[in-house]
Amino acid sequence: MLKGLSRAGLGDIGSDERFIALAGEYGFQTVDIDAKGLIDRNGLEGARKLLADSGVTIGSIGLSAEWRHSEDTFRAGLAKLAEEAAAAASLGVRNCCTYVLPATDYKAAHFTAIATRRLRTCAQILGAFGIRLGLEFVGPHHLRTAWANPFLWTLEETLDWIAAIGEPNVGLLFDSYHWYTNGLGLSAIEALTPDQIVHVHINDAPDVPVEEARDNGRLYPGEGVIDLGGFLKALNAIGYKGSVTQEILASEAPTDTPEGLLARSRAGFDKVYLAAGLA
Amino acid sequence: MLKGLSRAGLGDIGSDERFIALAGEYGFQTVDIDAKGLIDRNGLEGARKLLADSGVTIGSIGLSAEWRHSEDTFRAGLAKLAEEAAAAASLGVRNCCTYVLPATDYKAAHFTAIATRRLRTCAQILGAFGIRLGLEFVGPHHLRTAWANPFLWTLEETLDWIAAIGEPNVGLLFDSYHWYTNGLGLSAIEALTPDQIVHVHINDAPDVPVEEARDNGRLYPGEGVIDLGGFLKALNAIGYKGSVTQEILASEAPTDTPEGLLARSRAGFDKVYLAAGLA
Amino acid sequence: MLKGLSRAGLGDIGSDERFIALAGEYGFQTVDIDAKGLIDRNGLEGARKLLADSGVTIGSIGLSAEWRHSEDTFRAGLAKLAEEAAAAASLGVRNCCTYVLPATDYKAAHFTAIATRRLRTCAQILGAFGIRLGLEFVGPHHLRTAWANPFLWTLEETLDWIAAIGEPNVGLLFDSYHWYTNGLGLSAIEALTPDQIVHVHINDAPDVPVEEARDNGRLYPGEGVIDLGGFLKALNAIGYKGSVTQEILASEAPTDTPEGLLARSRAGFDKVYLAAGLA
Amino acid sequence: MLKGLSRAGLGDIGSDERFIALAGEYGFQTVDIDAKGLIDRNGLEGARKLLADSGVTIGSIGLSAEWRHSEDTFRAGLAKLAEEAAAAASLGVRNCCTYVLPATDYKAAHFTAIATRRLRTCAQILGAFGIRLGLEFVGPHHLRTAWANPFLWTLEETLDWIAAIGEPNVGLLFDSYHWYTNGLGLSAIEALTPDQIVHVHINDAPDVPVEEARDNGRLYPGEGVIDLGGFLKALNAIGYKGSVTQEILASEAPTDTPEGLLARSRAGFDKVYLAAGLA
Repeated sequence: MLKGLSRAGLGDIGSDERFIALAGEYGFQTVDIDAKGLIDRNGLEGARKLLADSGVTIGSIGLSAEWRHSEDTFRAGLAKLAEEAAAAASLGVRNCCTYVLPATDYKAAHFTAIATRRLRTCAQILGAFGIRLGLEFVGPHHLRTAWANPFLWTLEETLDWIAAIGEPNVGLLFDSYHWYTNGLGLSAIEALTPDQIVHVHINDAPDVPVEEARDNGRLYPGEGVIDLGGFLKALNAIGYKGSVTQEILASEAPTDTPEGLLARSRAGFDKVYLAAGLA
Repeated sequence: MLKGLSRAGLGDIGSDERFIALAGEYGFQTVDIDAKGLIDRNGLEGARKLLADSGVTIGSIGLSAEWRHSEDTFRAGLAKLAEEAAAAASLGVRNCCTYVLPATDYKAAHFTAIATRRLRTCAQILGAFGIRLGLEFVGPHHLRTAWANPFLWTLEETLDWIAAIGEPNVGLLFDSYHWYTNGLGLSAIEALTPDQIVHVHINDAPDVPVEEARDNGRLYPGEGVIDLGGFLKALNAIGYKGSVTQEILASEAPTDTPEGLLARSRAGFDKVYLAAGLA
Repeated sequence: MLKGLSRAGLGDIGSDERFIALAGEYGFQTVDIDAKGLIDRNGLEGARKLLADSGVTIGSIGLSAEWRHSEDTFRAGLAKLAEEAAAAASLGVRNCCTYVLPATDYKAAHFTAIATRRLRTCAQILGAFGIRLGLEFVGPHHLRTAWANPFLWTLEETLDWIAAIGEPNVGLLFDSYHWYTNGLGLSAIEALTPDQIVHVHINDAPDVPVEEARDNGRLYPGEGVIDLGGFLKALNAIGYKGSVTQEILASEAPTDTPEGLLARSRAGFDKVYLAAGLA
Repeated sequence: MLKGLSRAGLGDIGSDERFIALAGEYGFQTVDIDAKGLIDRNGLEGARKLLADSGVTIGSIGLSAEWRHSEDTFRAGLAKLAEEAAAAASLGVRNCCTYVLPATDYKAAHFTAIATRRLRTCAQILGAFGIRLGLEFVGPHHLRTAWANPFLWTLEETLDWIAAIGEPNVGLLFDSYHWYTNGLGLSAIEALTPDQIVHVHINDAPDVPVEEARDNGRLYPGEGVIDLGGFLKALNAIGYKGSVTQEILASEAPTDTPEGLLARSRAGFDKVYLAAGLA
């Protein structure tokens, strides 16, 4: 498994170029950034060199196509998606991810039908470039009632949705926070095959009742109550070999320097990997 | 368009063999029956001869696979579905239909995901035999709240669901009663292409406010308030060439003889086809 | 059915803007042009006005994505395909077509596998914009051996390939010349349903043995030996309502003026429509 | 990885019940047998007990549906396929395999189109029961010209074909003999992900030029020239966790007793697992 970083939790780290350099410096192996932007600014060879010089690859790009609202907006994003997929593929990126809010103001059944088709189209375009689509189910309880109608938030529901989408290159973005807030144990991970997991997020939860853990109240790995050692050990046991990427969503920006936050992140990874027997 | 009959509205008409004979006698061109049962009882050649002798073909078979409940039940129906499809194909049947209740006790989004996959599987099996799957949206208002959560009941929702299912051989069972209780006009029909319609049901509604029209309160064509002339004229104009099949769901069994009910049905068809300019 | 024109057979007719104007002037209803180019030059509203002022719509765009050669070339065309589909959809275009050469220098089975996947991807992108993909089988005998290995050229093979591609929005570009050079009769048309036909080409063949009819030896409708009256009558009978578009591929450019060629084309259409009983 | 047996190479081992018992006795973990037959003869609980008592599971069932010839034959096998898949799923079987001959008497492109659709249908039916479909490419050179037209025999072609089939549950049956006769090295295995491999066959080749290795001239593992240590090591390294199943196709039946052949097979496995560092 590859130690990865997103920008969430690193404060004002600046450009993606600087993010790459610092990630490499602190011993991380992947970053989640916009591959096309990196190429647009540095050229393909420049982008490749930047990554190679830091010993870093891109863990996942984000799905820019807006599949949650109007058909016009969705369609308008598809050419850009193809361009982003082409750019990502040229840098060897194999993953693209999007999150799934657990409630919706649309009628749930109709929204499911429309979103199934749209995410299938996204997966098909990504698949033409050898890229997988990861769907992140979102566990925090408060979000389940943040919109009018319940949508999907459990692992089982998400796997069923992936089957409904029906493309070979769709899987999970498996986030430790959503695993935790769904009340899942290690057996839920052990029941998965590695190809079902496109990408992994890691972060920790505060010591509050699980129902009260807020989506933007996340802690650095090893600083909270989630059994991240068990989490990593189980992922490794089933054969997952991709990125484990930190994503610390918080209501307030951290006040430390990026370097301080990187060191803290690094220490967190070391602690939980050690607990997993993977150090 | 072919004038068709189902057993609903014909009282105790007896065996399918008798149903076929009487349908032919009263000038109908298709019947909706169980193709496999007909072959099981009469042999393939016997079944073909029975139909040919009465000048009748089978408009549609019903989808026997139970896609609405447990996975075990669903799976248990698939081999039978393949057998029924094979039997139907051997008699030249091209259509298989199922209805979609407008509400569900399951969580709507999750149920949509599961049902999307299951109906896709059914469509794939049927498609291997050249048979299409028609989904009947159900309009009566009282059913929308008959189970805990709203599901799908409009034409637009059903077309979106068909797109989510994503197989080339899935379309609508378009029923005049559901068209009427959804408050749709002729333009809704005129916007369709004939390949979107697998099968058509025809029946009439009582002169009550549309919100009060009960699913099992249907009338024979021409005896109620639905603009069935316009309905048929629009279907013909877009190029629909399949069956228009009577289905009279009623809370009480009719008291007349089958022959009387067939004559009444025939008169109803004649009246509304005349109104459509198709006599 | 709509009388349509491509540029093939009209000499040096100039810009698409002039092509549209002249097509309308000579009573044609559709033109096959590049929708995106029209919008790029005139703006969306300008393009709509140009078409509306001439009473003309776009029959089909061409598939620009190169699916026949390297994977890199194929991928490089997908973003452009999405843009072209978006542009076409904004002008109400529903069709995009490509031709299928009857032989290939690649190993036939492997090429079939690759091309199946690529055309599926194209169909999926087009389908996201409500556009169908038409595949034109190519009948002239001399082309069957023009490359090392036989590929597909019959109607049956093409329908089987469409089933292998497996998307709901893929069908035939049905060209009278390929119908003729395949030795097909009217029953082959009568066995189709209109949704299987995305687009129709019309042109005539010289009075030579069918095996000697060259792909670039086509004549204007009504000037050769193909039973175009029967062709059109059968298409109309099955319910085809789309464009019938002239495409005169010839080894030498015509010497007449565009106006002269348009008048000749118009006379040809009038003659064969009359023969079809559709005048 | 699980040590597995097929009947090929074990002489006249008798009933599947005896085969299961002996496989367990000789330390094998999986057998390739007909799951439905086992249940038909022993009941579901009886079949489960037989397997559990011997510590054996079923590695893969064979695809009984005949996808290589007429459409009628193909269709006639689909109901049985659903029954077999249901039976297999009830015993926890996740794999079903078929082999792909490297040449065909049919026109290659057309056959590819038809077979793509048919194997997709098989995969869809199997997928409804959680079962994957493995395609075995066949490497021996003499078979490439055993029928009129070349079909598919390389790993790359087969992966491209799997992509053309386009279902999430289709992958490779990866046989050491076909890997060897295709002249592939370890890097070809290392480039795969474990989800691309449904099932593995193991057997060895005689010390003849690779072009002369006959399909039915296979040796027991460790008795020939294939680098089976490297083969297993590479499969293990990419994370493959399924069965490695012996299949010794030979022109003459072995003369030893089943027990002798099992001991010989066991010794072969021990030797090559040791060479792979997996003992």
